[in-house]
Formats: sequence, structure tokens, C-alpha cells
Amino acid sequence: MALANGSKISDATVRRLSKYYRSLKYAYDRGMRTISSQELAEMNNLTAAQVRKDLSFFGAFGRRGLGYYVADLQRNIARILGINKTWNVALVGAGNIGRALLDYDQFRQQGFLIKVVFDNDPNKIGNVYHGLEVRDFNNVEEEIRNNKIKIAIIAVPAQFAQSVVDRLIECKVRAILNFAPITIQVPDNMFVRNENMAIEIEALSFALTNRKEPQRTMS
Amino acid sequence: MALANGSKISDATVRRLSKYYRSLKYAYDRGMRTISSQELAEMNNLTAAQVRKDLSFFGAFGRRGLGYYVADLQRNIARILGINKTWNVALVGAGNIGRALLDYDQFRQQGFLIKVVFDNDPNKIGNVYHGLEVRDFNNVEEEIRNNKIKIAIIAVPAQFAQSVVDRLIECKVRAILNFAPITIQVPDNMFVRNENMAIEIEALSFALTNRKEPQRTMS
Repeated sequence: MALANGSKISDATVRRLSKYYRSLKYAYDRGMRTISSQELAEMNNLTAAQVRKDLSFFGAFGRRGLGYYVADLQRNIARILGINKTWNVALVGAGNIGRALLDYDQFRQQGFLIKVVFDNDPNKIGNVYHGLEVRDFNNVEEEIRNNKIKIAIIAVPAQFAQSVVDRLIECKVRAILNFAPITIQVPDNMFVRNENMAIEIEALSFALTNRKEPQRTMS
Repeated sequence: MALANGSKISDATVRRLSKYYRSLKYAYDRGMRTISSQELAEMNNLTAAQVRKDLSFFGAFGRRGLGYYVADLQRNIARILGINKTWNVALVGAGNIGRALLDYDQFRQQGFLIKVVFDNDPNKIGNVYHGLEVRDFNNVEEEIRNNKIKIAIIAVPAQFAQSVVDRLIECKVRAILNFAPITIQVPDNMFVRNENMAIEIEALSFALTNRKEPQRTMS
């Protein structure tokens, strides 16, 4: 991943930026107006050096003895992550996971607005969940165009995922958050993130299996 | 994070091990019996050097010109991740996310078996979802003990999360997968992973915001 200014940034750094953003919001809500790299590090179980390195990618340098201005840093990270504006999002799949996502406040709070939900099940099409009427996936092109959607969330069974993706590619969707437990194929100009909730729980079984001594929370 | 043999391993490495495990399963199902670090790397958008480094933590070294035995490596990683056995898991919260998780095949496939589900809502207690009757969270101690549960999943509103966790600590639960959008406090001998689905979608808005040129999928 490269920034417009040419500097390289890893997926892990982007993930940490999302966490710093939340920490800054938490700090600001509690009245903090400046924050040190050490404080940000402790809130995320990282080292201060890691925090400073991540933030330096974006030209954010704390001041000795003062640290970073919370509001400024939060605004900068929001801009970098592209969450200083709202994104219209399509959801494909109105099953259990899809309906849970419709009710997931964190998307809305970060500016990801699910504007349209699709399914191909006649028993679901027309139903209203969280104020959105389920649309027929056969009409996906029109709805995607009308809602100016660039990001889609896929929450369909594995065997349908690739054909859904192929259709979304034709609609010029640019980015996909995939909940289906399958590796999907996309052209080079498209972005995919796979959300696999079992990966996080495996970190817990790893910890219980390999570590006997006490340790602080993992982030 | 330290292994029993003393070597240090980062959260990012553990996450990659989970991905290698899936790649190996995919490869085996398609008839591959050996695999190179380069092949494993390409399946996960990593470098071969990164793959070799990660696997060397566990004494797994490929053979020049042959690579790794798929079945052996898969078995080794399963043992390291602690998914070579099953774990009884408790789910707290039978709302939208909780019910979606009850239906989430990936947990079962990796050996995480949700054995009991709790809620504190009288309208939910007694309901049966996916074959499990929702239990009253007031009786959590007995159920946790009877089911020998060490891992709990929390899918409750933010304002209830800490009190749920405090109660689980008393029950000697050792590890928590937290879906509540809040930082929970736990003692030093407990492990926590936070599952925040908005973090992955922020990587997409980051990509759309910062990168114009084509690029391959992110993992």
C-alpha cells in the first residue's frame, strides 16, 4: 500500500491507525486535549516507538513534553483513513450476518452508511430490516448506480460469493468487505478485505495453549 | 506473546498463521501435497521471506526444491494455534450479532463449539436459536463450570460489557472475544481480543482514498 506522497504503509499500520483514531476519540470524550505517544501506546498495548513511527508516516510529530493535540491528530487520521466523509455502502445478503451488520452502529459512526441491501431469496426480498427494504439482487446495477456506491459488503454463503462479486465488478464497485469464508477473485483495480471472525478467536486458543504466565490484554 | 520455548511471536504473526492454515487446507483439498513458501506467500499477498520467517518460529523449515509437506505443516500449525482440539465456548448476548455467531460455521470448523448462550432479557431467555436454549445470565457460574468453558464471546451492548466481563472473571473464564465497541478491563492473567468489523472497512476507505493506481487484493 502506498500513500499519494509515495511512502509505503502496511496493512498492519492501517489497522493501528484505526485503533489510534478510537483511542483519540475516547481520550477527547474524557477531556484530554493533548496526548503522548506513551499514552497512545498504553491504550493499544504497543510501544511508544511504534506509535511515533506510525504517525510519522503522515507528518504528525508530537512536541517534546506536550505530545500530540488530540483533536488535530484525530482529524488527520480521519482524513488519511478516508473517514472524514461518508461512504454509501451496499450490503449483499440479508441472512443472519447481514441483518446483524445492518444493526452495527460502528459502521454508521465511522461514516459507512448501508444504503441498500440485496438478496436473491424471494422470501426475503421486500422485507424491511432496520428501515431498509431488501432489494432483488437481479436489479443490482440500477441501485448501485443510483446510490453512487463504491463499497459493498458481502454476507452470502460461500458458494454464491464469487458470482456476486463478478456482478459487482460489472457495476464498477471498487472495494469489497467479504464475510464469506472463501477467497474471492477480483481484478487488479479492486480492493478486498476478508472479515473472518474465527481468526481472532484462534489468537485466544493460541494464547491459552502457549502461554502459562500472566500477561496484559492483547489488542 | 511468548511461546513455551521462549521465542517471541507477534499478534501479526499469529494472524498470519491462521491464514496459512486456511491456505494449506485449500491446497490440500485441491490435491497439493507439497507447497513452497512462494506459493503460500502468493496465496496471502505476502513475501516468501515473510512466510519462511513466520514458519521458522516453530521449527518448520521447507526443503530446497520441494517446499513443505502440506499435511505436516497444517498439523503443526493447528497444534501451535491450539485448534488441534475442540474448545467449549460460551456466548453472552443473543441479539443480532450473537445469533449470527451461533450460525457461523467457521467457529465450528476450527473447533470452537458454542455450548451455551446467555442473555439477561426475559423475552430472549428460553428461546431456542440453532438448537441452543438461551440461559439466564444470572446462572452463568453453574453453566460455565458444567461446560468446562475457558473462552467466552461477548456480544452485548457497550454499556453492559464490563459488568458481563467482571462476572466472567469470577467464573474463571480465561479468554474473551469481545464484539462490544468498548475497551474492557481484565486482570493480567486473562486474554482479550476485540473484534471490530469497522476496522476492516476502514482499510477499504483508506485504499480508495490514498491509492489511484491498480493493485492486487489486500488480505
